[in-house]
Amino acid sequence: MIERDEVFRIKTARKPGTLARVLARIADFDAHIGEITTVAITRDYNIREVTVIAPNDEAVDGIYRAIVDLPGVELVNEHFDRVFALHEGGKLAVRSRVDVRNVQDMRNVYTPGVARVSKAVSEDPKLVDRYTWKRRTVAIVSDGSRVLGLGDVGPAAALPVMEGKALFYAQLVDLNAVPIVLDTSDPDEIVETVVRIAPGFGGIHLEDIATPAVYRIEDELIDRLAIPVMHDDQHGTAVVVLAAVISAARLLGTELEQLSFGQVGLGAAGSAIARLALEFPFRAVNAFDPAPAAVTRLESFAASDGPPLTASSDEQAFDRIVEESELLVLATGKAGLLPKERVKRGQVILAMSNPIPEIETEDALEAGAAVAADGTIVNNVLAYPGLFRGALDAGAAAITGHMKREAAGAIASLAPHGQLLPDP
Amino acid sequence: MIERDEVFRIKTARKPGTLARVLARIADFDAHIGEITTVAITRDYNIREVTVIAPNDEAVDGIYRAIVDLPGVELVNEHFDRVFALHEGGKLAVRSRVDVRNVQDMRNVYTPGVARVSKAVSEDPKLVDRYTWKRRTVAIVSDGSRVLGLGDVGPAAALPVMEGKALFYAQLVDLNAVPIVLDTSDPDEIVETVVRIAPGFGGIHLEDIATPAVYRIEDELIDRLAIPVMHDDQHGTAVVVLAAVISAARLLGTELEQLSFGQVGLGAAGSAIARLALEFPFRAVNAFDPAPAAVTRLESFAASDGPPLTASSDEQAFDRIVEESELLVLATGKAGLLPKERVKRGQVILAMSNPIPEIETEDALEAGAAVAADGTIVNNVLAYPGLFRGALDAGAAAITGHMKREAAGAIASLAPHGQLLPDP
Repeated sequence: MIERDEVFRIKTARKPGTLARVLARIADFDAHIGEITTVAITRDYNIREVTVIAPNDEAVDGIYRAIVDLPGVELVNEHFDRVFALHEGGKLAVRSRVDVRNVQDMRNVYTPGVARVSKAVSEDPKLVDRYTWKRRTVAIVSDGSRVLGLGDVGPAAALPVMEGKALFYAQLVDLNAVPIVLDTSDPDEIVETVVRIAPGFGGIHLEDIATPAVYRIEDELIDRLAIPVMHDDQHGTAVVVLAAVISAARLLGTELEQLSFGQVGLGAAGSAIARLALEFPFRAVNAFDPAPAAVTRLESFAASDGPPLTASSDEQAFDRIVEESELLVLATGKAGLLPKERVKRGQVILAMSNPIPEIETEDALEAGAAVAADGTIVNNVLAYPGLFRGALDAGAAAITGHMKREAAGAIASLAPHGQLLPDP
Repeated sequence: MIERDEVFRIKTARKPGTLARVLARIADFDAHIGEITTVAITRDYNIREVTVIAPNDEAVDGIYRAIVDLPGVELVNEHFDRVFALHEGGKLAVRSRVDVRNVQDMRNVYTPGVARVSKAVSEDPKLVDRYTWKRRTVAIVSDGSRVLGLGDVGPAAALPVMEGKALFYAQLVDLNAVPIVLDTSDPDEIVETVVRIAPGFGGIHLEDIATPAVYRIEDELIDRLAIPVMHDDQHGTAVVVLAAVISAARLLGTELEQLSFGQVGLGAAGSAIARLALEFPFRAVNAFDPAPAAVTRLESFAASDGPPLTASSDEQAFDRIVEESELLVLATGKAGLLPKERVKRGQVILAMSNPIPEIETEDALEAGAAVAADGTIVNNVLAYPGLFRGALDAGAAAITGHMKREAAGAIASLAPHGQLLPDP
């Protein structure tokens, strides 16, 4: 059920209409066309690399069989998988920031020079922020117990995902990020391990750790460490969802005070979204989750100066929220949960489940939603790099609710005219 | 007592002899001249950056005062410290190996593409070596309990040193190295922590951890992990010392079988040197350390097929080793331990203590040594990057004695004609 991007290297006879037939055949499998790179144009034939976004593995296999049956069409290499090719050897590199060309350079960056820097830091520990990589470096920590749509795949299989997260730190905000995948899922051991490796890092980004363990892990690490600690699946997602909601309200020309915020699903992401929503001036925040523990936990975050909160694990609450919320956020992990018939005209619907949302964006819009989006648009790559960069630059000891609110507002304000969110 | 490289930015009146007077004044403080960069030449004056290798901080201060007293000489900025300037913001950067320019790239390196890679690794764990950075990445682990000549400075102050170690992996052998500095010095906790973070690394480089704890830490990690683990202060040093010894024998035109190997000092480095020497066909290996425990530990490594070993903590053994060893290696931490009068004509002397050796190279040569060198020449930067690169490329589960022997021979064979060791 995972969408798959496959590159087909296709040789077509140079006759008008050949490529069109190939693309039409691909469309038969409900697949989209991504990039098309023209590799060769000769007198007799053309070669192109066509990236196909297929709904699943079966569709990819079907397309392979279908293409080679077309007249004048050949596949040049039957299995070139660009995704795997890009992952060969890993996606990250550690490089020297200083150019070491001669012995004097070595004496400066290593012995004897480094001993003076080391001594200076030992005499004034604050200098570690200035003379090491610490203040520019985030550890991305995971035990691989809840990876993407895959579940508990363990630390090794989580590593490619953490490398993916890390490279956006490098490319978007010029921070160093180091994947740390852990051979333990015991919450106490995770906390101990992170505390012990923390002296070399300026921030701790927790990722893809299962609930409810991750709540306690995050709370304890925030308590014990004087550097920013954030579980991205919760707070990164919450920031970007609230950014989308602020932006949607702006697109509709409405104030937050007039809008009721409905949150369906109180897992890691959902509970953090509802929790952050409580810090904005909505008319009301209403939440539903079938698990009473999730409801109780959310209620503990209600504040007297925030919007009124109702949270429930009662099925009728679910119906009421879907019916009455101008802003409806779904984070349930249940593909296709929301039928088109239940969409209200003018509703804002963010269906966050991955890889398949609670309702497809096109279906929601067709059914009358004013704004609709899913996790491919409302993606936390827009939030976590900037949140950590801001926190590290400011020398903050934690990422606060205030910082998350400001970040959501800042992201919303960067959306191009008529668009819900900025492009990464 | 740490040698210090200082950059003086000096403005001299354009009269012949002015720079010469400056350099002569610097020499009065027993300081050497490093690089000289000419910044400006005008009609009236010149500006140059002169790197001075001063014996200690007091000499640097003295030079500052002396220079400004010279006629026609000014210091342009009084405290430009190139070493600290080079360390600003740290010496390492984590970068993306793949260029992410558009949405298709994001889909390939992150969701949805990465989920397929993650799934593949979860189904066939060996693929982690191919599709992540693991097999190209070494963790440099330290608790900062025995840093250079500084002692127990703790994890933060150890970080600049670990970054220095790490950048040679990047520059010399194209591996990624990640400094991991630990907020614990308890051997069991260090072992547990390293085991838990190990899934994301292809090798574990232990550095600057105090003896005897580090012996047990290294042994347990070798037992528990299926990736190379090496304490560089021991084995990196041993490899490069044996390389120097092989090279010295070659320079002298002698076979190892004719030579007696004497090791004075059985700390981390000394014990590993003696242990590795036992794997070469020397006529004999003789060792001394005042601590009986160090002697007993070395004796446990003696092999029936190796050279005969005598090890002792008796002062007379020290005298005998200095007197009788054609190859004399000192690793005692005691500056100036060996007086010139005790050097034997034709001896090979490697005085490894840092920052000040047991005997200065010039003094040893003057007293009749055939070959003499200290830790600035016999530097383990020649060994550890290549050892780990070789082990990782080979997919080795450990760094064996055989690999260390081969590495020592390979390093010796790379020495340019007439030189003890290759330049890094």
